[in-house]
Amino acid sequence: MPSQAKAFAAQSATTPLAPFSFDRRDPLPTDVAIDIAYCGVCHSDLHTVRAEWDGTIFPCVPGHEIVGRVTAVGSDVTKFAVGEIVGVGCMVGSCGTCPSCTEGLENYCTNPGFVGTYNGPDKHNGGHTMGGYSDKIVVDQHFVLKIAHGEADLAAVAPLLCAGITTYSPLKHWGAGPGKKVGIVGLGGLGHMGVKIAAAMGAHVVAFTTSASKIEDAKKLGAHEVVVSRNEDEMAAHAGSFDMILNTVAASHNLDAFTALLKREGTLVLVGVPEHPHPSPNVGALIFQRKAIAGSLIGGIAETQEMLDFCAQHGLTADIEMIPIQEIETAYERMLKSDVKYRFVVDIASLAA
Amino acid sequence: MPSQAKAFAAQSATTPLAPFSFDRRDPLPTDVAIDIAYCGVCHSDLHTVRAEWDGTIFPCVPGHEIVGRVTAVGSDVTKFAVGEIVGVGCMVGSCGTCPSCTEGLENYCTNPGFVGTYNGPDKHNGGHTMGGYSDKIVVDQHFVLKIAHGEADLAAVAPLLCAGITTYSPLKHWGAGPGKKVGIVGLGGLGHMGVKIAAAMGAHVVAFTTSASKIEDAKKLGAHEVVVSRNEDEMAAHAGSFDMILNTVAASHNLDAFTALLKREGTLVLVGVPEHPHPSPNVGALIFQRKAIAGSLIGGIAETQEMLDFCAQHGLTADIEMIPIQEIETAYERMLKSDVKYRFVVDIASLAA
Repeated sequence: MPSQAKAFAAQSATTPLAPFSFDRRDPLPTDVAIDIAYCGVCHSDLHTVRAEWDGTIFPCVPGHEIVGRVTAVGSDVTKFAVGEIVGVGCMVGSCGTCPSCTEGLENYCTNPGFVGTYNGPDKHNGGHTMGGYSDKIVVDQHFVLKIAHGEADLAAVAPLLCAGITTYSPLKHWGAGPGKKVGIVGLGGLGHMGVKIAAAMGAHVVAFTTSASKIEDAKKLGAHEVVVSRNEDEMAAHAGSFDMILNTVAASHNLDAFTALLKREGTLVLVGVPEHPHPSPNVGALIFQRKAIAGSLIGGIAETQEMLDFCAQHGLTADIEMIPIQEIETAYERMLKSDVKYRFVVDIASLAA
Repeated sequence: MPSQAKAFAAQSATTPLAPFSFDRRDPLPTDVAIDIAYCGVCHSDLHTVRAEWDGTIFPCVPGHEIVGRVTAVGSDVTKFAVGEIVGVGCMVGSCGTCPSCTEGLENYCTNPGFVGTYNGPDKHNGGHTMGGYSDKIVVDQHFVLKIAHGEADLAAVAPLLCAGITTYSPLKHWGAGPGKKVGIVGLGGLGHMGVKIAAAMGAHVVAFTTSASKIEDAKKLGAHEVVVSRNEDEMAAHAGSFDMILNTVAASHNLDAFTALLKREGTLVLVGVPEHPHPSPNVGALIFQRKAIAGSLIGGIAETQEMLDFCAQHGLTADIEMIPIQEIETAYERMLKSDVKYRFVVDIASLAA
């Protein structure tokens, strides 16, 4: 017997999110059923419900920064028990057999790609997957994460499931740590976690912001230095000095300003796809010091667990503003103006209102 | 007493190269004086004499693929003896103290950069350096290379000093070798060496060409497969399969066609700066499989020696067409039409004519 989930959904690209209900499957032998407590609000949610990316399927229930409590487990589930606090991120499935999946990088599954927590193909129910703006979810145990943080932190843990892993994975992959100078561009949901995580990894962290008003905030997050990227003199003072720069800004902008700051063999890592292409980057800047521009997409499940454990160990959570689901459209508008420090999190209890 | 060198020089961006003479310094204690036998013709020579890049200083004697015989050595020279066959590539100096120089990567000198074999600042004579379209040159021993090839191969060794190291260095840096699938884009002076070297390194080599007429030639050079890059079906058959693709084409073109062929964590390496920017690359293609676009610039002196020794050991030289210096303008025009297999080399004996 499937159970009915309460949710907020978009019925089209131009209608606001509104109450909606749908069926979650009964737990299969390897499934974990979860009552959702909190769900972070990611910019991807907004892109998807407004069909700013190709392929949105309506009705759309977004949300992929999910924390909650296990209510039931399938007969073959060994990793989780009823009552346990758990998380679910951007993925609820993958092929399990391609080279990426067998190496634990389900995020890079090529057969044909991971199953998104929302707007992905639902192989169990047919149709498409529905995300965390809902009061319950059923997920294969492989894609469920353990949460070592205390329960008081739970709402602020939710954004780690996307914003946390999206920054942790490239910082780890490109070697952020003691002796390394790491830049973080943008101080939104992703960037503020990037600053916290890079600092906890032991790197020398420089935050780049377009607004001088964010300097003190960035330092509070853990940045050792803050550069106002519109100030050419400040930028020039850092020329050729960064091992890596993690660029969390998806809006189209001039990448050359940042490749110029990399040292030899440094990498500018992009994690956001711009709506309109960035100006074509200066190839000479790459050639003359063997630099690179690379991309990174969330992280694998094992690495997501590692990130959660790392954050628990270092006392890291997101800085959040909690909202009831009924304020989601206002939150989206404020997010578009970067008017949030630094992540909205939906209190899923509000769905019962 | 400086000695007079016979040469061909451009007096302006719009005049053809013509006979010219100038003084080479007497060998300083660490200098090696060389009678030049052959000098390869690089596309950079043409860009420089026609002032297509910023900063050409006239008169300009180009040429940085130099082989010849030692005629004199300074009192402190220990590495070379009179009569020895040697080479000189793109660099004749660097600061020697910056991090890149101390790591043996003089090509990435940042203080303020290596001294080019031509059109660089001449700290000894004042003015600017003069290159290999001349009958003699005096170079600090640190920037002189030993040639292990037989003397009969000497003309065909000259292009290794730029085309060889420019392809060897990125192939080595990004791990070309057994078990790796490596693409080489373009079959000019650089590309034909890239194919030979990558094959000798043990990689599975796929050559990309815009012209079906080059398929057999590419196979003769050592390519295991040849893809006509204008054929979308042929390209699609290689999607997501390359560890690295070395792109030797400097002309502005669509990079997305090649990033699509990289596997996860694959790198597209650019070695040429386009006159007009490439179309802005698709950032999503990088993000969704953690791919990168990188650049590489020639190679350090130690690596250049390693490359020369590798080529001698594997019997690799360039495929060349020898010309007298008096035909240099015709050679430039043919080079612009890619009408050369695969590198012109100037027989410097022709300067005496």
